[in-house]
Amino acid sequence: KINGQRLWDSLMEMAKIGATEKGGVCRLALTDLDRQGRDLFVQWCKEAGCSIRVDRMGNIFARREGRNPALPPIMTGSHLDSQPTGGRFDGVYGVLAGVEVLRTLNDLGYETEAPVEVAVWTNEEGSRFAPAMVASGVFAGVFDVDYGLSRKDQDGKTMGEELARIGYAGPDDASYKSHPVGAYFEAHIEQGPILEAEDKTIGVVTDAQGQRWYELTFTGVESHAGPTPMSRRKDALLGAARVVDAVNRIGLAHAPVACATVGMMNVYPNSRNVIPGRVFFTVDFRHPSDDVLAEMDKELRAEVDRIAGEIGLQVELEQIFYYKPVKFEASCVEAVRKGVAEGGFSNRDMVSGAGHDACYLAGVAPTAMIFVPCIDGISHNEVEDAKPEWIAAGCEVLLHAMLQKANE
Amino acid sequence: KINGQRLWDSLMEMAKIGATEKGGVCRLALTDLDRQGRDLFVQWCKEAGCSIRVDRMGNIFARREGRNPALPPIMTGSHLDSQPTGGRFDGVYGVLAGVEVLRTLNDLGYETEAPVEVAVWTNEEGSRFAPAMVASGVFAGVFDVDYGLSRKDQDGKTMGEELARIGYAGPDDASYKSHPVGAYFEAHIEQGPILEAEDKTIGVVTDAQGQRWYELTFTGVESHAGPTPMSRRKDALLGAARVVDAVNRIGLAHAPVACATVGMMNVYPNSRNVIPGRVFFTVDFRHPSDDVLAEMDKELRAEVDRIAGEIGLQVELEQIFYYKPVKFEASCVEAVRKGVAEGGFSNRDMVSGAGHDACYLAGVAPTAMIFVPCIDGISHNEVEDAKPEWIAAGCEVLLHAMLQKANE
Ligand SMILES: NC(=O)NCCC(=O)O
Ligand SMILES: NC(=O)NCCC(=O)O
Repeated sequence: KINGQRLWDSLMEMAKIGATEKGGVCRLALTDLDRQGRDLFVQWCKEAGCSIRVDRMGNIFARREGRNPALPPIMTGSHLDSQPTGGRFDGVYGVLAGVEVLRTLNDLGYETEAPVEVAVWTNEEGSRFAPAMVASGVFAGVFDVDYGLSRKDQDGKTMGEELARIGYAGPDDASYKSHPVGAYFEAHIEQGPILEAEDKTIGVVTDAQGQRWYELTFTGVESHAGPTPMSRRKDALLGAARVVDAVNRIGLAHAPVACATVGMMNVYPNSRNVIPGRVFFTVDFRHPSDDVLAEMDKELRAEVDRIAGEIGLQVELEQIFYYKPVKFEASCVEAVRKGVAEGGFSNRDMVSGAGHDACYLAGVAPTAMIFVPCIDGISHNEVEDAKPEWIAAGCEVLLHAMLQKANE
Repeated sequence: KINGQRLWDSLMEMAKIGATEKGGVCRLALTDLDRQGRDLFVQWCKEAGCSIRVDRMGNIFARREGRNPALPPIMTGSHLDSQPTGGRFDGVYGVLAGVEVLRTLNDLGYETEAPVEVAVWTNEEGSRFAPAMVASGVFAGVFDVDYGLSRKDQDGKTMGEELARIGYAGPDDASYKSHPVGAYFEAHIEQGPILEAEDKTIGVVTDAQGQRWYELTFTGVESHAGPTPMSRRKDALLGAARVVDAVNRIGLAHAPVACATVGMMNVYPNSRNVIPGRVFFTVDFRHPSDDVLAEMDKELRAEVDRIAGEIGLQVELEQIFYYKPVKFEASCVEAVRKGVAEGGFSNRDMVSGAGHDACYLAGVAPTAMIFVPCIDGISHNEVEDAKPEWIAAGCEVLLHAMLQKANE
């Protein structure tokens, strides 16, 4: 039995770091606040008797030794970074559920066969640095480390520089090859409305949607909003606006499952009486079927070309992030199911709508995920919330699933 | 006869202050660069024997005394501030054409009956601080001085603070009441394509379009781009995008004369995988008929309500700037016509598409404007350009018009 109150208290303690006025969290990757969060995690894990290792991508691993140190660790974890207006649970719940597992094992004086590790993955959100899950992606061999360290934020600062600045550019290779993983579990809030709507406490995550992310730049001609006739304009914002609407139509055309979002847009020169000459914006597509994702890709490209042609804009379009739908590993999903059964929790199978570090880990280790509901299905929002009993239940399931794998 | 080469050289000298890589100028109102531009203007005018006064809005007046100092001055001028990616002529041409008039009068040892003044108006562009022409508006009694000084830039700095910081918060009342103007002329590049297309050197400006500027904020619900079904979204950017398209349709519906532009848009939290919860954007409408402008206003409000209703967004809509179409004063327009005739310049009557300080001065003094072409009709762009012979011709006309009024 885990200690739900202790877990909740730790979540609330961590939520003070980067707390926002509206009750959320702003703890962007590799900022000073991210460092404070990392330091607190390391302190708690050391107090729990763990050894700490940090790899070149800044991923942190807290290790509780097993009876057989030669066995690959049974790992859990998630991320401590947040969105600019993020919540108190997204990511941090998976990390602190892992810490609660360590503490519970200590309370019980329980020795596992395999070592147990809790990981903090760097820059999962993909908000300060795109793409998302870049550091677990490097660890899983999807990206090389140079790619990872050279990701830039909007001010041109790289992940490598910022890792060094906050003191988390570790010495270890960021790779499953030198750090094999026996099994990986990740607990997370659902970030969607399904569990709460169906009054289920646990989501047994069997799959994750595929994703495609794009960066687009439309270039027209900057010109005066007053004396430039409508017929002579090459308005980059008008083009971008039409693409926003087209992206929405593409999402709806593949509803109810598809998601299609323009989350970011920067207008230049962004002056009230200047026809915008350049607009940078992003597109995020998701679908559980890779074929549908490919169709959405085609539709986007056709719409972008049509719209740019209509207005006379130059187009740059780059797909900067793509992963296929993920199927989690059967024995790990089974371990989650058993944990759910032991706790007697209401549950259902789920497809993850969000990307998670587990999606990359799934490529290099047997992996599964555990979801708990969040209030109104809202995440990536300061009001993100969850009930303490959900939080405790997910951790309970995590403990049981990890113990099964650690003692196999 | 003015000295065209001297005027051109002064323009090029001033263009070094805030010069951009692409050959344009970035000299935003009340920045250190704006101060440098002002200092250079003051230096040149002192060298030309003028006295200098600065009012509370930072408007600068350089005065060349007349035979009869009790007569209200014949004034010319424009502005030294630019757009973020502005050109070398917009505004600064009108100021330095005034300086060239002073220098020519000195060369000739010419004494005018009324004094002659050259004005630099603060923050004409409305880019760093909205609205446009705010300081000539205060001078003309359209806004009160507290309104003017409290205008804020995007960082929350006020015009009052920034005037004090750069040393241009003058002691004089910013009002035509304590500073009556005998007549006001302003030379400016057309900023549109008509003169060049028709191969005319001078535009005799008889009217200026009316303008309405709006600020809009759409508020929806920030949420995760992955697990939030399309049907549950309240995407503020989708709403704003549809308004951009609607604004374009409204402009086209009243073409060829109407202009309708969204120049500025800020998306929050502006993160790739977050459905935007809030978008701030601006609308700029122009038309020579006040009735049509009122129709456009109605259409905008209807479209905004319809679109916000469709998506479930909260709306804030404020008209922050409005002036009716302006008719310039007959005797001043006549003085411009005579100047054109004396120089033998090809010309046509014109309606100004842009707003100018002259539009506010027109409310408190007999006023007219002189346009010269600009290459490809492009302005509010770093590539903005004009031919030296156009620049000289406009100044020649300005000199003649001012002398007529100064010796009436
Ligand atoms: N869980 C989560 O919010 N991940 C961020 C990456 C994504 O957008 O799916
Ligand atoms: N001339 C000029 O560019 N004025 C700025 C105000 C406007 O947008 O009309």
